Amino acid sequence: MAPPFDLPGDDTVAGIQINPPASGRGTSVYSEVQASRIDHSLPLPSVLKSPFKIVDGPPSSAAGNSEEIAKLFPNLFGQPSALLVADQSNAIPSEQKLKIGVVLSGGQAPGGHNVICGIFDYLQEYAKGSSLFGFRGGPAGIMKGKYVELTSDFVYPYRNQGGFDMICSGRDKIETPEQFQQAEETVTKMDLDGLLVIGGDDSNTNACLLAENFRGKNMKTRVIGCPKTIDGDLKSKEVPTSFGFDTACKIYSEMIGNVMIDARSTGKYYHFVRLMGRAASHITLECALQTHPNITIIGEEVSKIETEKMLIQMVETELEKKKKEGTYKREFMGKSHFFGYEGRCGLPTNFDATYCYALGYGAGSLLQSGKTGLISSVGNLAAPVEEWTVSGTALTSLMDVERRHGKFKPVIKKAMVELEGAPFKKFASQREEWALKNRYISPGPIQFKGPGSDALNYTLLLELGAEA
Amino acid sequence: MAPPFDLPGDDTVAGIQINPPASGRGTSVYSEVQASRIDHSLPLPSVLKSPFKIVDGPPSSAAGNSEEIAKLFPNLFGQPSALLVADQSNAIPSEQKLKIGVVLSGGQAPGGHNVICGIFDYLQEYAKGSSLFGFRGGPAGIMKGKYVELTSDFVYPYRNQGGFDMICSGRDKIETPEQFQQAEETVTKMDLDGLLVIGGDDSNTNACLLAENFRGKNMKTRVIGCPKTIDGDLKSKEVPTSFGFDTACKIYSEMIGNVMIDARSTGKYYHFVRLMGRAASHITLECALQTHPNITIIGEEVSKIETEKMLIQMVETELEKKKKEGTYKREFMGKSHFFGYEGRCGLPTNFDATYCYALGYGAGSLLQSGKTGLISSVGNLAAPVEEWTVSGTALTSLMDVERRHGKFKPVIKKAMVELEGAPFKKFASQREEWALKNRYISPGPIQFKGPGSDALNYTLLLELGAEA
Repeated sequence: MAPPFDLPGDDTVAGIQINPPASGRGTSVYSEVQASRIDHSLPLPSVLKSPFKIVDGPPSSAAGNSEEIAKLFPNLFGQPSALLVADQSNAIPSEQKLKIGVVLSGGQAPGGHNVICGIFDYLQEYAKGSSLFGFRGGPAGIMKGKYVELTSDFVYPYRNQGGFDMICSGRDKIETPEQFQQAEETVTKMDLDGLLVIGGDDSNTNACLLAENFRGKNMKTRVIGCPKTIDGDLKSKEVPTSFGFDTACKIYSEMIGNVMIDARSTGKYYHFVRLMGRAASHITLECALQTHPNITIIGEEVSKIETEKMLIQMVETELEKKKKEGTYKREFMGKSHFFGYEGRCGLPTNFDATYCYALGYGAGSLLQSGKTGLISSVGNLAAPVEEWTVSGTALTSLMDVERRHGKFKPVIKKAMVELEGAPFKKFASQREEWALKNRYISPGPIQFKGPGSDALNYTLLLELGAEA
Repeated sequence: MAPPFDLPGDDTVAGIQINPPASGRGTSVYSEVQASRIDHSLPLPSVLKSPFKIVDGPPSSAAGNSEEIAKLFPNLFGQPSALLVADQSNAIPSEQKLKIGVVLSGGQAPGGHNVICGIFDYLQEYAKGSSLFGFRGGPAGIMKGKYVELTSDFVYPYRNQGGFDMICSGRDKIETPEQFQQAEETVTKMDLDGLLVIGGDDSNTNACLLAENFRGKNMKTRVIGCPKTIDGDLKSKEVPTSFGFDTACKIYSEMIGNVMIDARSTGKYYHFVRLMGRAASHITLECALQTHPNITIIGEEVSKIETEKMLIQMVETELEKKKKEGTYKREFMGKSHFFGYEGRCGLPTNFDATYCYALGYGAGSLLQSGKTGLISSVGNLAAPVEEWTVSGTALTSLMDVERRHGKFKPVIKKAMVELEGAPFKKFASQREEWALKNRYISPGPIQFKGPGSDALNYTLLLELGAEA
């Protein structure tokens, strides 16, 4: 057994001292696994490793009510998506120095730090002398002009690490005319060429509104979004998955798998597990595919269930009835679990780490190319990383409208579990067997090296058609 | 990204089909990580790899009330501990074929399957032609004569796997004269040379009573115990740790570390975590050393705390008071967590896998040598595995008596957290700093390869004096 990893003279138990100047984690001590992840080298899609050009696609439309979206986004509606294509003749790196801001918006998702590292490294590689600023505490940081310059030393300890604590996040929205005014003032004062908004559906809608607003005023600041949410409900044809979903599902599945082995070993308890998530049940479906529980409730298929505890009570009531009838003779003992916060800040899987790095790197290329109102999109994810595609998708093309208080509001529609989609169909084809026979699978802890360390989640694989 | 590990023709999502004949996991599908662990090769202490002899130590006493223990164990009291020592002249493998039974008793702990694999492999190596039988469902299996013969194919899928489902466990005790009679009949009918009892303090006390009973009746069946419990409260000078503690604490610490990063990222919630365990707080202390929470409550130091929810309420009440006084102006939002069942059945760490295998292997040698009433003991655990010591410790030497219903009952005293011990002192020396500054550590998921995969837990390291 190796002794634990301690720097000489370090008086702490558990790990090494990471001590770069001016960092939020400057006084942090890292576990051996955290420390080993910092220098984990990330592969890049080939197109990002050599000179490239950006090729525009055909004009885009909207996900619904395109006429209303056109009215809401007169400057951006219809703009094409942008695809990066290798081009040896291109004169990248350019001479132009950029000033870019980045903000984390909404709940944490594993990999957020890597998006920032990705755009940081892009600027170092392709736009030397550029500056990257991190707005602190989410969109409020933009409105209040609270930011920090992200230097090489500053970002270093966050490479491949979970959490959003490099610059922290927040749930404020830039909505009122005064708030748009504040944002405008901040980016003008900072002389920003671009802003990268890392967030979920609402945050990306907000990013698009900012882009429209800035463009409408002929400001130079471009805005690019990035798809983040463990819930997995921000996706489309061009955006195959939101980052963080992979890691969070694997953490929950580890715990579910452990509880399953416990159930099989004792034969004593019935375990009821509730998972994080909002309206969409992607997390639950993915965890079911990974672990094969006896019964899984997918919200899109049945009426909404309040809690796992209510379920236990229903089962108890039913069995009590059957006991009185003499048709059930055993004891029922229910245990409830909620797996939520444990999954939002885990160390990102190899997939999320690599995917996020590419998303951030790609976002840099879009901003440098003068693009705005796009969401960074990395595709062909079932292929080796070298073959991944990098593009920007028009945010307006993901939008529909909702009528709120008599007014049309643009929204990126949440992607629900499709009952006709491959992941649900796979689940539906097997669930009867899982219900009757115990086909439990225990995925075990996320591995960073060796078997399983590069496995994709089933939702993504099945949606990409990469799994029979 | 590699595609998932699927056998050709396998129609299941998630992993490979493990399909040996007659196994409880015969119809199970394994995740890639589970599958990769099956063939993980385990190092053995050098002394178990070549001919050895068993050297008896000096006569033993008891942990307390030795006169009463002597009366309760007239046949076993005072017997020496037994140490394995390399001896090239010894004629192992012997010609004698053994019939051995094994039972899992009480709550699950990661590594239990490896104890069984250890004794199985010992018999294959040193007593060819022997038979190993697994009693089903814990001690009740002994009383009812419910068992299964453990063959190479049967044990194979459980190698390095979590859970106790190979033969399942149970909490019954062999206590009354009738129950002792039933046990006697079973082992006589089965013609058992030995019985290995894998359990916690109560189960090992029970093992010693069985050993005394069998010896008193001149039966040939010897009984050896094995220290199991995630609670970590079964240990002594000779038994440095109980198996499962390492894995469970690492699983809990992963979750705590994730929640800590979440707290640091949002700055919004205060998290209260309760951990599994009974009277002793070893798990909590170990997790504190691994993760550095702001406040840790060690039961041995303070009055008993009922729940993490009560704590939240106390903080709320106090802050409400301060708000009225105008000395506190922020919002308090508490989140409670209980980490328990998730840790009992995880895939054993490299340490638990190796430790358990040595415990089982060593138990085989003790039974073959005619020993009874000992607990399998593997020591020198801070050194490389090759240098680990293997011995058997007299169970009576761990015992004290308790007076119950006017009668003396033998008990193996639970090892509580020692306030003068190295782990607590380390914690006490740092907790003020942890309380005021956020020194959180996020251990990350258990790794089976690469950095961190062979790290020992801090409790064990500090108790062994291997960490300053």
